[in-house]
Amino acid sequence: MTTSFAPLANDTFLRACMRQATDYTPLWLMRQAGRYLPEYKATRAKAGSFMGLATNVDYATEVTLQPLDRFPLDAAILFSDILTVPDAMGLGLSFAEGEGPRFAKAVRDEAAVAQLAVPDMDRLRYVFDAVTSIRRALNGRVPLIGFSGSPWTLACYMVEGRGSDDYRLVKSLMYARPDLMHRILAVNADAVAAYLNAQIAAGAQAVMIFDSWGGVLADGCFQEFSLEYTRRVLAQLKRSGVDGQPVPRIVFTKGGGIWLEDMKNLDCEVLGLDWTANLGQARAIVGGAVGGPGKALQGNIDPNVLFAPPEAIAAQVRAVLDSFGKPHTDESTTGPTHVFNLGHGISQHTPPEHVAALVETVHGYSRSLRKR
Amino acid sequence: MTTSFAPLANDTFLRACMRQATDYTPLWLMRQAGRYLPEYKATRAKAGSFMGLATNVDYATEVTLQPLDRFPLDAAILFSDILTVPDAMGLGLSFAEGEGPRFAKAVRDEAAVAQLAVPDMDRLRYVFDAVTSIRRALNGRVPLIGFSGSPWTLACYMVEGRGSDDYRLVKSLMYARPDLMHRILAVNADAVAAYLNAQIAAGAQAVMIFDSWGGVLADGCFQEFSLEYTRRVLAQLKRSGVDGQPVPRIVFTKGGGIWLEDMKNLDCEVLGLDWTANLGQARAIVGGAVGGPGKALQGNIDPNVLFAPPEAIAAQVRAVLDSFGKPHTDESTTGPTHVFNLGHGISQHTPPEHVAALVETVHGYSRSLRKR
Repeated sequence: MTTSFAPLANDTFLRACMRQATDYTPLWLMRQAGRYLPEYKATRAKAGSFMGLATNVDYATEVTLQPLDRFPLDAAILFSDILTVPDAMGLGLSFAEGEGPRFAKAVRDEAAVAQLAVPDMDRLRYVFDAVTSIRRALNGRVPLIGFSGSPWTLACYMVEGRGSDDYRLVKSLMYARPDLMHRILAVNADAVAAYLNAQIAAGAQAVMIFDSWGGVLADGCFQEFSLEYTRRVLAQLKRSGVDGQPVPRIVFTKGGGIWLEDMKNLDCEVLGLDWTANLGQARAIVGGAVGGPGKALQGNIDPNVLFAPPEAIAAQVRAVLDSFGKPHTDESTTGPTHVFNLGHGISQHTPPEHVAALVETVHGYSRSLRKR
Repeated sequence: MTTSFAPLANDTFLRACMRQATDYTPLWLMRQAGRYLPEYKATRAKAGSFMGLATNVDYATEVTLQPLDRFPLDAAILFSDILTVPDAMGLGLSFAEGEGPRFAKAVRDEAAVAQLAVPDMDRLRYVFDAVTSIRRALNGRVPLIGFSGSPWTLACYMVEGRGSDDYRLVKSLMYARPDLMHRILAVNADAVAAYLNAQIAAGAQAVMIFDSWGGVLADGCFQEFSLEYTRRVLAQLKRSGVDGQPVPRIVFTKGGGIWLEDMKNLDCEVLGLDWTANLGQARAIVGGAVGGPGKALQGNIDPNVLFAPPEAIAAQVRAVLDSFGKPHTDESTTGPTHVFNLGHGISQHTPPEHVAALVETVHGYSRSLRKR
């Protein structure tokens, strides 16, 4: 364990996560290291496969830093996949070209569920090594975010064996054998907690739980099968990093805007929102007053905005910043804050120069918003 | 035009839509005539293709009535497709086996948009003939629901040319050229209104607007590009049918539960909800008090519940009925009512005997709920 990382030159993202006043609204982009960047494609080609890229510390470091060299983003996020944990459980993850992730073994019956266990974290050493390598390479430019899929989201893939458009198998198991589903989710939650704690120990300065498929659950089931296990993860997470600084915890449930009242009391610092949510309404529910408790909000522009011309992108960015309203500016206390992001991962078809227009507008307009 | 239809033997569905007290909670199932029924598959095989089935009055009548012969459902819904209107606009609809709908011509530029016009309703005569034929064949057993896709949902397919998982093309057009998108939506709204009015004239006793893709829009865009045009359709609809009875109008936005406050003032009688919404919370927002204005609610069980064993299905059905709470029972006035349905179309993989369990529990349990 090392604590010899460089001091942070830009802590705007971490401050906003902790609901502290900032001069402008920090931003990063979900999947910011990815296929829309030609330099990413070049590294990916050298690596030979997606997992070849994710498991190689040098390549993972290289691609994580690529978007920062193009755009003045306020955070980096570990380059990895949400399915590394079930892979380490022995399910055999692979990525067929153009087909998305697939598991060699799906978990669909009592016997398969009985075999599940929290994997030895040594099997995920390549991830933790990448975290340390990236943090070193960042050299204090911006903070590094670690992440994992949520217990429910991992379960979707583990039961379906691959992506799904109706979640028939995982929901069938959930409705028919809730006992088995709870067992899968308990193992997943403890595994995710251990995984994120190891990322924190390796140098991650914030962690994010991607509940990418929480939004496909019915009301009632979301609370029982997704939220409850996110809560179980959060309860086990370290609160400070290797440098003794607080490590903010971000929870993002795609399609979860309808359940903000339920998520209000989650023990985390930041809630991520997709584009269907109104940031002003969300702020009223979970943002809290100046000086009081509350959560920071992260989000939530539609990634498809990036296909419009730069002027249209700027207008939509301003609309999202306006919908949150003016973040608090009281240096002496905490209050409502906003971390700008997309409402979902950036599309591989995005023109990189359009991202530049977005970043510039977020920084420029959010500074002007604070002066009103 | 004929008004010689048989009187209704079961008006429970229509009464519930109009917020009148009923002895039990009526139900029907989205896509109740479909591939999960072997008798449907037999008729479909005779017809040769999906459009061959939809455009043949006798086949369309036959499949519409099939689920009613198996289950004591409280309404029938016209067998057709949501894309008949853009097909009539000349876009060339086809269904490739196992691939979903596809248009020969996509609408992606100014020239294509300029050519769009409300189609001659004579091109949709096969739909109206089917409505009249089905209503005659029903002979008053239950009411017949007509339907259309919403202006936005039709636009998604018209611009994408087929189904999409990211709506990149339609959203790119929307963000880059909102003027063109508004023009498409205005034509669609007027076409949908004419189409639904012709279905009402042909004998439809209720109409439903399927905003299947409204939920993919960002907050703000939903209100501007979907809801506003649903409103434009509703404003043009006939309020009574060929027999002089009121024709309730149902609006269903998949993923729209987050926008109930916006939909509260729509000029329609019923709001459909998917399974992410809590019926009790929705009732508090839009259901209205006994004796006051408000909307009936339709929905919202997860269709995947039907893959669980019958006892588990019954428990989930009771939970959905309980989440709405006791419908009002005051015969002298209007008040909160519930029409049971799925939150989305039934899966083709559903065992038909599981549907029987669902129907039986809805009827039985909802009667007992009223006696408490």
